[in-house]
Amino acid sequence: MSWQFKLTASVRASPLRALTTRPNNGLLLRPTALGAAGSFSAWSGSTMTQTITYAKRTLSTTQPRKSLNLDNINQNVRAAKYAVRGELAVKAEAYRQRLTEGDSSLPFDSVIFANIGNPQQLDQKPITFFRQVLSLLENPILFENPEVLKTSFGYKQDVIDRAKVLLGNVQSVGAYSHSQGAPGIRDSVAKFIEERDGFPANPQDLFLTGGASAGVSTLLNVICNDSNAGVLVPIPQYPLYTATLALLNAHCVPYYLEEQKAWGTNVDAIKQSIAEAKAKNINVRSIAVINPGNPTGASLSPDDIKAVLDIAAEETLVVIADEVYQTNVFTGEFVSFKKRLRQLQQEQPGKYDDVELVSLHSTSKGMVGECGHRGGYFELVGFDPLVQEQIYKLVSIGLCPPVVAQCLLETMVNPPREGEPSHELYQQEYNGIRDGLHKRALALYNAFQRMEGVECQEPQGAMYLFPTINLPSKAVEAAQAEGRAADEFYCLALLDATGVCVVPGSGFGQKENTLHFRTTFLAPGTDWVERIVKFHSEFMEKYRS
Amino acid sequence: MSWQFKLTASVRASPLRALTTRPNNGLLLRPTALGAAGSFSAWSGSTMTQTITYAKRTLSTTQPRKSLNLDNINQNVRAAKYAVRGELAVKAEAYRQRLTEGDSSLPFDSVIFANIGNPQQLDQKPITFFRQVLSLLENPILFENPEVLKTSFGYKQDVIDRAKVLLGNVQSVGAYSHSQGAPGIRDSVAKFIEERDGFPANPQDLFLTGGASAGVSTLLNVICNDSNAGVLVPIPQYPLYTATLALLNAHCVPYYLEEQKAWGTNVDAIKQSIAEAKAKNINVRSIAVINPGNPTGASLSPDDIKAVLDIAAEETLVVIADEVYQTNVFTGEFVSFKKRLRQLQQEQPGKYDDVELVSLHSTSKGMVGECGHRGGYFELVGFDPLVQEQIYKLVSIGLCPPVVAQCLLETMVNPPREGEPSHELYQQEYNGIRDGLHKRALALYNAFQRMEGVECQEPQGAMYLFPTINLPSKAVEAAQAEGRAADEFYCLALLDATGVCVVPGSGFGQKENTLHFRTTFLAPGTDWVERIVKFHSEFMEKYRS
Repeated sequence: MSWQFKLTASVRASPLRALTTRPNNGLLLRPTALGAAGSFSAWSGSTMTQTITYAKRTLSTTQPRKSLNLDNINQNVRAAKYAVRGELAVKAEAYRQRLTEGDSSLPFDSVIFANIGNPQQLDQKPITFFRQVLSLLENPILFENPEVLKTSFGYKQDVIDRAKVLLGNVQSVGAYSHSQGAPGIRDSVAKFIEERDGFPANPQDLFLTGGASAGVSTLLNVICNDSNAGVLVPIPQYPLYTATLALLNAHCVPYYLEEQKAWGTNVDAIKQSIAEAKAKNINVRSIAVINPGNPTGASLSPDDIKAVLDIAAEETLVVIADEVYQTNVFTGEFVSFKKRLRQLQQEQPGKYDDVELVSLHSTSKGMVGECGHRGGYFELVGFDPLVQEQIYKLVSIGLCPPVVAQCLLETMVNPPREGEPSHELYQQEYNGIRDGLHKRALALYNAFQRMEGVECQEPQGAMYLFPTINLPSKAVEAAQAEGRAADEFYCLALLDATGVCVVPGSGFGQKENTLHFRTTFLAPGTDWVERIVKFHSEFMEKYRS
Repeated sequence: MSWQFKLTASVRASPLRALTTRPNNGLLLRPTALGAAGSFSAWSGSTMTQTITYAKRTLSTTQPRKSLNLDNINQNVRAAKYAVRGELAVKAEAYRQRLTEGDSSLPFDSVIFANIGNPQQLDQKPITFFRQVLSLLENPILFENPEVLKTSFGYKQDVIDRAKVLLGNVQSVGAYSHSQGAPGIRDSVAKFIEERDGFPANPQDLFLTGGASAGVSTLLNVICNDSNAGVLVPIPQYPLYTATLALLNAHCVPYYLEEQKAWGTNVDAIKQSIAEAKAKNINVRSIAVINPGNPTGASLSPDDIKAVLDIAAEETLVVIADEVYQTNVFTGEFVSFKKRLRQLQQEQPGKYDDVELVSLHSTSKGMVGECGHRGGYFELVGFDPLVQEQIYKLVSIGLCPPVVAQCLLETMVNPPREGEPSHELYQQEYNGIRDGLHKRALALYNAFQRMEGVECQEPQGAMYLFPTINLPSKAVEAAQAEGRAADEFYCLALLDATGVCVVPGSGFGQKENTLHFRTTFLAPGTDWVERIVKFHSEFMEKYRS
């Protein structure tokens, strides 16, 4: 029912240009899936292996009577790549569906979604205090009988008090709020930042968002002023950055993280990337840093942060600090870019005065894990007030972030304090989630140590491990024969054999001639880890020369 | 502390080009507010009155050490206009704040936000069934004691049953869902559309969204493929359309609605707009229709809808049917574009087969009014599946719409049926809101009948009236002396005198030499209507020649 032709080509020689996600650079997309969701080719370092698989339906792109076809829609959309929810995720969902419907022909009895940081899909329990407050906000009639709430459902007085305060702030969770977020909630976020950093924060500089992704999109929309604009993005990276830059027809200017130094930031690599970009007339305007790292799990030291701020000050770059994993830190202590900047501004007056910094946070990660609520914020530091007005206008076009999520954010940044009735349970739940994550991270790390050809940095933070996989050349050839990147080939085989879904390193970017995959360590139990170990051993055996 | 210079100029001779919201067409923006929110100049027909008010801070745009200033950010962002939350809204909020703080120096004791369709801000009560279900989803521990829920809090069994089904669909409202929305919820939406139209709907073609605005943004992002792309937009319109087109550097191709025919759609006007656009090499790709209308309140007849579909079929245009007010209809019956298209496809096989239609709906309007939850959906009809895949990829970059809002949407499209325990209360609340809206619309309409120089079409639907105001020439001159559009001048004076906040017609677009304002009819009571009547009479007196 379909015909194919295959093409393998080295598209670009320079790593910089290979990662440039612009529509006119000859990057082709591969439409394969016949379902609602497509698969989109991934890139790997400076060499791109490309397959074009045309199903018969592809011919519909020539439908002359349709206004929209693949060739005349916005080609920036077409050029954008987002592997986290691509072909593998769609296939995993199809397997899950088959299992639900009683299909017993598969070689596994459950699908493990280790491809996406979605804790509550993997049975992480929400924190009780948060959800009790939100239930009252959804149905304020529950306030009318506080004694019953307490005796029958375990609500404490501080839950009821908090819900009343929040309702006072937003009037109703069904009403639009201020486009930057309800003022009272921004006050709480400002206090949280002040306590975290020891430096003041201004609620006027805070923008509540529908998840951190919405914030990144807003900021890149403002920063990218023409097709020469470039943003420094760490490689490997969370593909939101490259995808959004592709949508804006702007340049992704990659800088490689150092795997051998626990995925640390290499100042020389950044400087070299800037120099190469300038030589190509790219106007480098900003640097994105993900700390703790996604997909690497790395946690930056204060010196690393200073190094980035030094470059930002010297090169006049906007620093985008994606700090959504700030509480997911196993070793050392999280230091925010804002705190480090304020310290440096005190220590060396002048040099850092004009640095523009955005710090992003989210309710989706940490021990909160409330992805589905879509909450978060960003703080602007050192921005021109007139630019800030434009950012306000831009977000106002989308009206406001979800109000329930704003309230959730407030409980996250202002949890029950010691001595308050809900504190003990909150702390117990919080620590339980934190310790569970660390334990599972170590179990996975230990399993990787046992696997032939697999190298993994010690887990430091975030929700991910990103091991290198050294595959036999026969496996690489088998992948090429299918027109796939070798890591994608490996991950598909893993999914087909075990039901464990991970994301190939090519979806995040990786150095030439290296292969990785990203796995979360959220799934409960260790059975699935053993599935990976067994699969890997069989895979290596099968393709051994 | 600030210096000003003023400039009044006719920017463009042709109405078409005046409305072209591209950054390079010489339109200037006016930064005035010193607070977090700016004010942005509005346009009026083909003539633009423009003031440039530079506060001292404006000089910061020359700050050489900042990466971002007003002149080097994305100029599409700068060009976008969104009056609904602009200067007037900011001033109204400041007044509200002063009243809250006990300021008794103002000539009014409350601020009436008639500028924005935000029912629950104006004390509209949420529908009990919806909120009961959502409270259980936020805190499923409440399921454990259903008898107490019933006896102490009035929950019925169908609330508990529904919440359990929804929880089965989404697992947790804190987990990311499928990027198109949870499959089980899309099934419910498909059933709703089938019942509404009598034609099948496919859940695969449904995309749940964070409000209809997010859906419009997604679709225009896909449709606008280059700076020649144009989209037909009704004038007056909800400024989301022009703002989003400006962000995409695409052309707004305006077509004027006929005020004298209850703001109906004029086929000849649309054809003329297309011809004029083509003559300017604009590639007209799509037509947006808001039905029932915002800001006009108009409700289109089946013949009007056919006329639009005829043009779409002839000109190969994507129809964007913004149907968020589909239940806010006072006269006649709402007919969806999808239903009319399917009817025509049956009646005249061939002609309409390839029409591409998007229909948008929302949880923010109707009798639901849950704006803060940010829920909605769009349905794609007749789209190339490969284009649909690209739309899926685009929305997947934003992960998923808020899951609580998805569940709210499910209760909206699948409310308690006759015979079910919650039906009676639901129906009573629903009818109460509907009748209240109609009553207030008529009261406002009757007040406008009494006001000198004010003409208003009879209310037909949506949440708005959009009267013409004929102002004395002295008032127009006074406005010009302040560098303001006359309707903006009027609305500011109204706010300053009465605390009633409405939006000038120039924020939505209006024919040359006409003036309007948009007011919602959501605010309870009639006191505020009398405030408008009194103000208007004094205003007319003051500026009488």
